[in-house]
Amino acid sequence: TAMLDVPFLPFCAFLGTLGLLCVAMVGSWCQHWRGGFSLDGSSRTFNWHPVLMVTGLVVLYGAAALVYRIPNTWNGPKLPWKVLHGSLALGAFVLTVLGLAAVFRFHNSQGTPNMYSLHSWMGLATVLLFSCQWAAGFGAFLLPWAPAWLRALYKPIHVFFGSTILMLSVASCASGINEKLFFSLKNGTMDYKLLPAEAVFANTMGLLILTFGVLVVAALARPSWKRPDSDSPDSRQVWDVLGG
Amino acid sequence: TAMLDVPFLPFCAFLGTLGLLCVAMVGSWCQHWRGGFSLDGSSRTFNWHPVLMVTGLVVLYGAAALVYRIPNTWNGPKLPWKVLHGSLALGAFVLTVLGLAAVFRFHNSQGTPNMYSLHSWMGLATVLLFSCQWAAGFGAFLLPWAPAWLRALYKPIHVFFGSTILMLSVASCASGINEKLFFSLKNGTMDYKLLPAEAVFANTMGLLILTFGVLVVAALARPSWKRPDSDSPDSRQVWDVLGG
Repeated sequence: TAMLDVPFLPFCAFLGTLGLLCVAMVGSWCQHWRGGFSLDGSSRTFNWHPVLMVTGLVVLYGAAALVYRIPNTWNGPKLPWKVLHGSLALGAFVLTVLGLAAVFRFHNSQGTPNMYSLHSWMGLATVLLFSCQWAAGFGAFLLPWAPAWLRALYKPIHVFFGSTILMLSVASCASGINEKLFFSLKNGTMDYKLLPAEAVFANTMGLLILTFGVLVVAALARPSWKRPDSDSPDSRQVWDVLGG
Repeated sequence: TAMLDVPFLPFCAFLGTLGLLCVAMVGSWCQHWRGGFSLDGSSRTFNWHPVLMVTGLVVLYGAAALVYRIPNTWNGPKLPWKVLHGSLALGAFVLTVLGLAAVFRFHNSQGTPNMYSLHSWMGLATVLLFSCQWAAGFGAFLLPWAPAWLRALYKPIHVFFGSTILMLSVASCASGINEKLFFSLKNGTMDYKLLPAEAVFANTMGLLILTFGVLVVAALARPSWKRPDSDSPDSRQVWDVLGG
């Protein structure tokens, strides 16, 4: 048992490395195989979409979600950690909105309709949930006016949606990478079916993004990494309401 | 707080209804819009793939995963419940293997390569994890020879992969439905871009499958629905090892 009992900080360092690897891979994919980046409405504008989504709604979002698992946050004043959690989440949200802007601008300049695929429905549902999550979290936990009972009531809901949004986010990434490869790899020796180097690279990247999401959700769910005060009888009762 | 405190069994009835709705929708999609079912190697053979995967690796798998959350399983002899859990999981596994056979047969009879897309990589990774999960669970928990320390060591790993496999499974479904709609809806007024009725129906089905997966994973993680013995000091320590 002791052999399997990983401490939080080394696990976090591993997760950080994996997250940076995902960001580096999606950037290299778009730069090396998909023509790089621009703001001209071409597919080079689209390329910002995967990079910003993976960086914002997966990696930075994951970092924000894990803030309260750092043992240093369990003692002393809570406000600085709340501000850090909210700021990282806000950074993730800004990148996400820019990532949406990139794909809408690309579609509009190409005359392609928006919001028809399952990928787009999942993705937009994820972003809408995230915006509600951020606004409600800000209102309930950072503004000073929310009463304690409201915070206690809302906290398990916030925790539940914290993991849910990340699961939906990585599922959206996987469907998006899959669809982009079908769109892009359709000629001769570069056909997706023939598994050219780009396909192997991007499929591997997709599996790594899924692994990152699964490990963050698992770290969030792990009882011994949770802030001890959520085990006190009062908040435990509340905690159990939605089972985050 | 009391208002939000849903009891397990009504929640389970809701989940069961949602799961049956997903199965009914994937069946209707393939029957009504994709030409129905056959074993001749055509796209009507492929149609077994989504139906068997959603039925086996999502809905029946979810039912198997939730067995130990039924309060009746917490007292009395454990063996009948273990047999039920293992049998439902075996049923899910058999449907999954048949679902894989359907898509391999379709590809082979059409001369299409297998296992090139991210969807196929994710899906196969999910099925491989599930087969290891079932075999290791059978060996450790149903066969009488595993020592108690091995069961205690393996249990949190089994629980962790239980939720992980379901997350990967619904993410695979979403990418598969998305890609199938891009393949199938490409002519004139039926183009996916124009959101014909089939696209709205199948996109909605995709979101319902994701919702089912998220709710099962949340139900599994909810502390007050867990078998109380996992809160005893001994097993709690083990439980914390991987944080299922």
